[in-house]
Amino acid sequence: MFCGYRRKIAMSGGPRILCVIVLCVCCVLLGQYHLSNSVRNNPQQYNDLNLESIETRRYVSDAGTLNRINECLNYGSENLPPLYIITPTYRRSEQLAELTRLSHTLMLVPNLYWLVIEDAYKTNDLITDLLKRTGINHVYLTAPMPEQYKKKKGAKPRGVSNRNKGLEWVRENAKTGVFYFADDDNSYDLQLFNEIRFTRKVSMFPVGLVTKFGVSTPVIRNGRFSEFYDGWQGGRKFPVDMAGFAVSVQFLLERPHAIMPYSPGFEEDGFLKSLKPFEPNEIELLASSCTKIYVWHTQTKKNEPSSSLAEKYNNTNVHLLKKILV
Amino acid sequence: MFCGYRRKIAMSGGPRILCVIVLCVCCVLLGQYHLSNSVRNNPQQYNDLNLESIETRRYVSDAGTLNRINECLNYGSENLPPLYIITPTYRRSEQLAELTRLSHTLMLVPNLYWLVIEDAYKTNDLITDLLKRTGINHVYLTAPMPEQYKKKKGAKPRGVSNRNKGLEWVRENAKTGVFYFADDDNSYDLQLFNEIRFTRKVSMFPVGLVTKFGVSTPVIRNGRFSEFYDGWQGGRKFPVDMAGFAVSVQFLLERPHAIMPYSPGFEEDGFLKSLKPFEPNEIELLASSCTKIYVWHTQTKKNEPSSSLAEKYNNTNVHLLKKILV
Repeated sequence: MFCGYRRKIAMSGGPRILCVIVLCVCCVLLGQYHLSNSVRNNPQQYNDLNLESIETRRYVSDAGTLNRINECLNYGSENLPPLYIITPTYRRSEQLAELTRLSHTLMLVPNLYWLVIEDAYKTNDLITDLLKRTGINHVYLTAPMPEQYKKKKGAKPRGVSNRNKGLEWVRENAKTGVFYFADDDNSYDLQLFNEIRFTRKVSMFPVGLVTKFGVSTPVIRNGRFSEFYDGWQGGRKFPVDMAGFAVSVQFLLERPHAIMPYSPGFEEDGFLKSLKPFEPNEIELLASSCTKIYVWHTQTKKNEPSSSLAEKYNNTNVHLLKKILV
Repeated sequence: MFCGYRRKIAMSGGPRILCVIVLCVCCVLLGQYHLSNSVRNNPQQYNDLNLESIETRRYVSDAGTLNRINECLNYGSENLPPLYIITPTYRRSEQLAELTRLSHTLMLVPNLYWLVIEDAYKTNDLITDLLKRTGINHVYLTAPMPEQYKKKKGAKPRGVSNRNKGLEWVRENAKTGVFYFADDDNSYDLQLFNEIRFTRKVSMFPVGLVTKFGVSTPVIRNGRFSEFYDGWQGGRKFPVDMAGFAVSVQFLLERPHAIMPYSPGFEEDGFLKSLKPFEPNEIELLASSCTKIYVWHTQTKKNEPSSSLAEKYNNTNVHLLKKILV
């Protein structure tokens, strides 16, 4: 129909007019194509147009920025082995701050699933909201410490029920990729995630700020693993920090009985030993043969629960803030 | 020339052939345009192709990921008022960890300049390298505490020389936008940066984990500023935390004598008073009328310098790690 129309014009008006009309049609087509392409290929530009219209541009929505980041990061990242980050947590004054801070690190890592597991009987809406706002693929589960350990005197096996719950989730939901126990108060270099992602069995690397030694690491002598450098040996086969190793999901699936024991101070060792058969000479050494530090065992100063609020603040914003505070 | 060529063909072969040829040319043009557009509009796709070729895809370079993020974030963000983040720092066991962690938050904020200012006589290559890897626009300066305060007994005016150096840099290099004093151990919600960016004079908002009150904030009564809620008043006109306010660059430039005093505990108050004329009723109240917490004064547990290394580790990786440790 399109060609027939043009032929009719050409026959009546001559080739010159035909040429001009066809060129005009082409220009219009090219123009339309350019516009549709700009929107399709530059979703962030499209977002900006929407943002522009927000009242006086005073607030740029978090969601807008985060969607743009995720769009960029996820593009092409689906071929990377997935990373399952297991983060045990518990309600305390610093919890929201710590998880917010860690979320920013994880937002920069492509193809990642964040398993946030709280030592509690029910989830907390503030955390649910925080996780949603990050745009990270996540699950938020609860795993309270069994009552018998809560009652026990002395050091408690903190985070064990959480981490075992994480392992349970990984077993049920993952087939490939790598998992890593990442506490919410540690600090991580992005390079760590680039490297652990390709773990075949169990990879290890130095952790800074552990004991008075300042670092916990495998010792590399003549280019090979020789022993562990850690301020506390305790007769452990694997004297390493919880943040010092990552494990392949497939390797875990081949060891259906691997589990973390409720033994304060021996959680890492117990878990790594439960991955048997697995010997220290099989460790994959990351971080440039353990010469760089990509994770630090930073600890946050504990705060007492906030003091109670005087009645005179009843009809003020401080009264509302109190609901967020521990 | 293009039209003349076609006209010649039309004259010899008739309008049908002309029509077919022009359509073919259009198809070729559209095809070429599509290809060039794909590469231009999807730089991340182009980067992926480069990444693919890296040996066994084992290491995805930090720089690659970061460039993609920055490319996405900076796209269209040049219209946002710039943010100048002034971070005082000093050499200690936790320094690299804290700056790494903070950098991840700042990497997610568009149109930002990071002024990292160390209390030292010379810069540190580890920090220079870290800052370069973040891809953030930054300057790294030094500003040692004057000797007279170092010798003084009791509380020291920490971070004052750093922050004044930051103000000096802002005065010399910025004309618009907003600056904010962001310590390297605090935790920040991304929404904070969205909001402070549009400060006209001085904006304020709650800071969590400050004193036993658990929060420091302006008090809003009947929708208006009424007083300050802070665990330590100390006779201050502005009893607020260093992380609790942001200031417009233009407002600072109109107050050439504004400066932070070397008075431990009175740094915030002294600086805000030096912005005169400025009264508490002019404060712009952010964070949903100060009912949300977007910044926390988290403090990291201090670590002693790491113990010295036994000679037996001389030809191992631990010897090299020691150079990173404090």
